Amino acid sequence: MSSDEVPHQGVLRPAPESFLSGELISAISRDGIDHHRRGLLRGAFGAAVAAMAGSAVASDPDIVTPPEWSRTLGKPVATNPYGLPSLYEQNIIRRQSPGLTQTDQASVAFTPLQSMFGMITPSGLHFERHHQGWVDIDPRRHRLMINGLVDTPVVFTMEELMRMPSVSRMHFLECGANTALEWGNSAVPTVQYTHGMLSGSEWTGVPLSLLLERAGYDRRAQFLLAEGADGSSMTRTINMENALDDAIVAYGQNGEMLRPEQGYPLRLVVPGVQGVSWVKWLRRLEVGDMPYAAKDEASHYVDLMPDGSQRQYTAIQEAKSVITAPSAGQKLQTKGYYCITGLAWSGRGTVTKVEVSVDGGRNWREARLEGPVLPKMLTRFNFDWVWQGDAALLQSRVHDSTGYIQPQRAELVAVRGTRSIYHNNAIQTWRIAPSGEVDNVQLG
Amino acid sequence: MSSDEVPHQGVLRPAPESFLSGELISAISRDGIDHHRRGLLRGAFGAAVAAMAGSAVASDPDIVTPPEWSRTLGKPVATNPYGLPSLYEQNIIRRQSPGLTQTDQASVAFTPLQSMFGMITPSGLHFERHHQGWVDIDPRRHRLMINGLVDTPVVFTMEELMRMPSVSRMHFLECGANTALEWGNSAVPTVQYTHGMLSGSEWTGVPLSLLLERAGYDRRAQFLLAEGADGSSMTRTINMENALDDAIVAYGQNGEMLRPEQGYPLRLVVPGVQGVSWVKWLRRLEVGDMPYAAKDEASHYVDLMPDGSQRQYTAIQEAKSVITAPSAGQKLQTKGYYCITGLAWSGRGTVTKVEVSVDGGRNWREARLEGPVLPKMLTRFNFDWVWQGDAALLQSRVHDSTGYIQPQRAELVAVRGTRSIYHNNAIQTWRIAPSGEVDNVQLG
Repeated sequence: MSSDEVPHQGVLRPAPESFLSGELISAISRDGIDHHRRGLLRGAFGAAVAAMAGSAVASDPDIVTPPEWSRTLGKPVATNPYGLPSLYEQNIIRRQSPGLTQTDQASVAFTPLQSMFGMITPSGLHFERHHQGWVDIDPRRHRLMINGLVDTPVVFTMEELMRMPSVSRMHFLECGANTALEWGNSAVPTVQYTHGMLSGSEWTGVPLSLLLERAGYDRRAQFLLAEGADGSSMTRTINMENALDDAIVAYGQNGEMLRPEQGYPLRLVVPGVQGVSWVKWLRRLEVGDMPYAAKDEASHYVDLMPDGSQRQYTAIQEAKSVITAPSAGQKLQTKGYYCITGLAWSGRGTVTKVEVSVDGGRNWREARLEGPVLPKMLTRFNFDWVWQGDAALLQSRVHDSTGYIQPQRAELVAVRGTRSIYHNNAIQTWRIAPSGEVDNVQLG
Repeated sequence: MSSDEVPHQGVLRPAPESFLSGELISAISRDGIDHHRRGLLRGAFGAAVAAMAGSAVASDPDIVTPPEWSRTLGKPVATNPYGLPSLYEQNIIRRQSPGLTQTDQASVAFTPLQSMFGMITPSGLHFERHHQGWVDIDPRRHRLMINGLVDTPVVFTMEELMRMPSVSRMHFLECGANTALEWGNSAVPTVQYTHGMLSGSEWTGVPLSLLLERAGYDRRAQFLLAEGADGSSMTRTINMENALDDAIVAYGQNGEMLRPEQGYPLRLVVPGVQGVSWVKWLRRLEVGDMPYAAKDEASHYVDLMPDGSQRQYTAIQEAKSVITAPSAGQKLQTKGYYCITGLAWSGRGTVTKVEVSVDGGRNWREARLEGPVLPKMLTRFNFDWVWQGDAALLQSRVHDSTGYIQPQRAELVAVRGTRSIYHNNAIQTWRIAPSGEVDNVQLG
């Protein structure tokens, strides 16, 4: 990808600039937000804050003359009946990686993780991965069929599905190919492109178990084939165990109907499982007694091992984490305090701990987790750090509720080799140079 | 408001139509999604599902000839670098209520609760309440000053604030005037207008306690004055207790920067407290030793009591709930199963139970709560109901972690009278006629 295509910290964007070029702020204690240590905090910050304040006031024309927005009538309510981000944020968008795929319809647009907060991905920034482009289906004409090893094949309209018992649950969605280029030596320039096929949303729909009960599935049932209504007819095998556990036939995302790029009006949600199995524009579920070996599970989405064999049906997204800021392509402008922030998740359960290292994995300290910490959902972590101006190697690693610990890249490669595309959950390293510049490096 | 201004269930909208006009679905047991009772479920649904399926297949041309979206190439990724809802959803927008206020800059646009899911409000549908219109402030020029009873007055840039320790938390935001017209006999036509000044978001920013510590607040400090940078210079008194507890100086909402209509680039978040105190475009916090009696707390946002006295500084939003569907303006098209759904919240803590009545409060049954149930955040509830075609009176009531139970309207009016504008948290009643039409009624 070309370097001029990565304006991840444009002039209109306050977040990365702010994060990276602020006035000097003195070091704070690790317990900076612990109310029991106010005295310590007050002492640590007094001088630094006074210095900041003086310089800001003296140099600021808006303090002397109120800015225009404080002196004029603003815009009416409902100027935008469906609201949009600030004009100053128009650089924070999902971005395609030119050359990564041969056509723009079978391609990827990545989420700008480096500029985002919390655990919810706004639907407008949700990553895209299509196999024959996206479509905006008329919901009055859309149908879901359930056939195969069932008492009676059934066809549901959207009206019927939306009248049924519904659940709402928050889950992450990660493409199995997220972080794929890190298997090689490619230094992908930003976290948007290394980890940006990742999102966290609140999904609403009908429990898949309920629909299967309604169809009356056979005792021989062990697998489902899920099929999409777009031109690619994406087909994937789903384990019956996943289907009956926490899978959802979803029409809602983050409080409203699914977006077209996310499968409007209906998609499958299979928590913990790679994104390709969350079939979009879902039109059919076939109940069967063996895996279907569809194109996208026989020739794609398989893992090439060092001995030349292929791992197949490796659908679960293992525990993984990444520091989203500071991250490659950003620059630390001054020494002093930084709030290192990132995301952690596990397809097998709940995040129990995240640790951060600033020396390439020699020493680790525990990060703060922002709640609620939910199963198979993103967890935001924050970590207080004072940069002294030296070179540093930033890493994060997650522990999950199964006891699993995210591996270093060398550990993962020792088992998996470097010829895979999918399922790279290695620890990511960002190198900070004494100049403050941050880039993507691979250790070992 | 005029009736032609309320197209809450337009032709392009699948949700209300779907919810209301689906094929007959037979009754399901209350334990419809309980995996331990699959046998019961299978028995209950078999016949109904078979009937549905037959009719759907026979009448559906798309089953015979695949629809055009299954036979053509879709749109490229990043067609919309910042994504938008489906074209079929363009009727689901926030709406102003003409005539409610004298100018469109000091007005309200309401959230379409009747068409929404879960507990997250997408930022594009967040309600608006401005006092002199909304502005889109250049974040590079925005400042936050902390002055008053502090060791040293301080001024922060956005860059400085965004480098500080941050937290992300989910909280509801409700205008103190939400449901105001229900104090009178006015039959507001939809839940969008009765309860649509309500949202649930994930907020990210600096704990206010940390900023106050940095400024070094005085021992005499008991109150804050929060001031906005828009033309109205909205000013509100905040209790120091709230300020030091869980208040946030927020720049992030639902994963991205605040929207302009929500105070970009900085607003105050005061969980549990009415919206007017969550000052938008926040530019100043003054520490003081007494309430400030600002315009919007001396002459507005006060509660006129039956004896002619005024309650002042009644900022906490008491526990409240509302059924969002079926709700006034919708129509049940057929008998059979409905999933009654709604929202519950408490400014004093956590929702512990929601009950639903279909007979105007004589009998109550417990609803399912969708997790996670978080303090001072919306909780989605769902309730299984079989409509037999008779008249019905739908109500919900919430219990919170303090033991408080949401009052019937008559109970609230017995204490507060009917001359208030603000802080109406009474149980809402929707009447269903034998025709299936739903309207807004007041009992007792």
